[in-house]
Amino acid sequence: MGRVTARRKVVRLSGGRRSERVDTLVAEEPLELRVGGESLMVTMRTPGDDFDLAAGFLVSEGVVAESADLVTMRFCAGADEHGEQTYNLLDLALAPGIAPPAPRQTTTTSACGVCGKTALEDVRTKSAWDVAEDPMRIGADVLAAFPGRLRTAQRLFDKTGGLHAAGLFTAEGELLISREDVGRHNAVDKVIGRALRSDLLPLRGTVLMVSGRASFELVQKAVMAGIPALAAVSAPSSLAADLAVESGLTLVGFLRGDTMNVYARADRIAEGA
Amino acid sequence: MGRVTARRKVVRLSGGRRSERVDTLVAEEPLELRVGGESLMVTMRTPGDDFDLAAGFLVSEGVVAESADLVTMRFCAGADEHGEQTYNLLDLALAPGIAPPAPRQTTTTSACGVCGKTALEDVRTKSAWDVAEDPMRIGADVLAAFPGRLRTAQRLFDKTGGLHAAGLFTAEGELLISREDVGRHNAVDKVIGRALRSDLLPLRGTVLMVSGRASFELVQKAVMAGIPALAAVSAPSSLAADLAVESGLTLVGFLRGDTMNVYARADRIAEGA
Repeated sequence: MGRVTARRKVVRLSGGRRSERVDTLVAEEPLELRVGGESLMVTMRTPGDDFDLAAGFLVSEGVVAESADLVTMRFCAGADEHGEQTYNLLDLALAPGIAPPAPRQTTTTSACGVCGKTALEDVRTKSAWDVAEDPMRIGADVLAAFPGRLRTAQRLFDKTGGLHAAGLFTAEGELLISREDVGRHNAVDKVIGRALRSDLLPLRGTVLMVSGRASFELVQKAVMAGIPALAAVSAPSSLAADLAVESGLTLVGFLRGDTMNVYARADRIAEGA
Repeated sequence: MGRVTARRKVVRLSGGRRSERVDTLVAEEPLELRVGGESLMVTMRTPGDDFDLAAGFLVSEGVVAESADLVTMRFCAGADEHGEQTYNLLDLALAPGIAPPAPRQTTTTSACGVCGKTALEDVRTKSAWDVAEDPMRIGADVLAAFPGRLRTAQRLFDKTGGLHAAGLFTAEGELLISREDVGRHNAVDKVIGRALRSDLLPLRGTVLMVSGRASFELVQKAVMAGIPALAAVSAPSSLAADLAVESGLTLVGFLRGDTMNVYARADRIAEGA
């Protein structure tokens, strides 16, 4: 659709000098997902690979686990209130027996709310796969090459500097899928959704590599897709590490050069060539 | 509360050597906000400054605009289902006449969903202040010092490497408020909430500095708080630039050394000393 970048006028100040030019920015647009006519969510995302994004979002939410669960996806055919076809609304149809995500709970309970344990248990309940049992092993040297290879695959970053990337690698080092987005979670959803649509779930024997930090939600997305290892260039959070330990997912942070920190299941990583 | 960091065991691999140690990670925990017993939202955040976070979230959503709108905030006094006081549920009481945010819309319309224009108009409708009219001016040299000063104020980043920071500066260069969080939006909400609770809204004559990129939502938060300028170390998105132009907010990106890109209202920035 050619809407992944946008050109905007910019005033550049440098060392006391002022100049005008045109800059290439990463595009950001809202996308609304609807199931059966009901609005499911609105996310700000970089346009493109929207079917992948929607499919991956549904995997992360525990709604679908194979491509047959998602019958059709199509852009709203009409125009918005401004008379334009925006390609920003996706109508989804689920297979019979597949329930859409429950609406957000607004009832009052006496319980004192969510906590880390609640969040961890929630993921364990929802996931269709057990990543702890994945026998995958990977060489530290293979892992060490992933950040550079993901960076090379990032077509847009060099133009805009404004994108997160996610890549799915095999333990042998093959890059299966890579996606970019202005939102870190969207980039991962796009990768997982593409895999679902190619009937690749559960993603046994793979590593999900992300360009930034590793949050709880990114570990959750990996577990929901059956991915046994998540590697990040930057730091994980405490709850990300806890969920990795709880789920038996290999969590690598600060993957830079031949150095890395492993927060869970380091037994899957082999030193040496 | 001393829960902003957490210590976790880590296996470090470096140049073929493996060692075990304890690493300090940034804490991430869910926080639930309730108004009148109804769940408003659950966010993953770094514990601490939770009253600021809640207040800032309500400003960003257009619910409150002054401290009197928010009557009380208190942590749920009971225990969670695991028998622990988690400090992860905040009960909020709004002043009479202040309506909580509308529940997420799930009705069917014939319109083809949201688009960039819809999003821009939504912010214009909701904001109580007009940042376009703010006569603030700031020296480029003053702005250039902000990233370093924000970095110095980041108490946790050096320990964990996993945090976003946001700081509110005056045009004269005084740092009024700085906050950190595992989530970029949370850090900004904490800054704005602290300002609301100190009766500083609208934040005329100030600059909001963020450690990462400038998304649509961050520009939106600045506009909702009456902040006339947003500066980011990294890139803005297309819709962030569009909203800045539309709102009359000065948007600075790639603020590094004495170099910066200005995407809107560059007239507020003066070169030279």
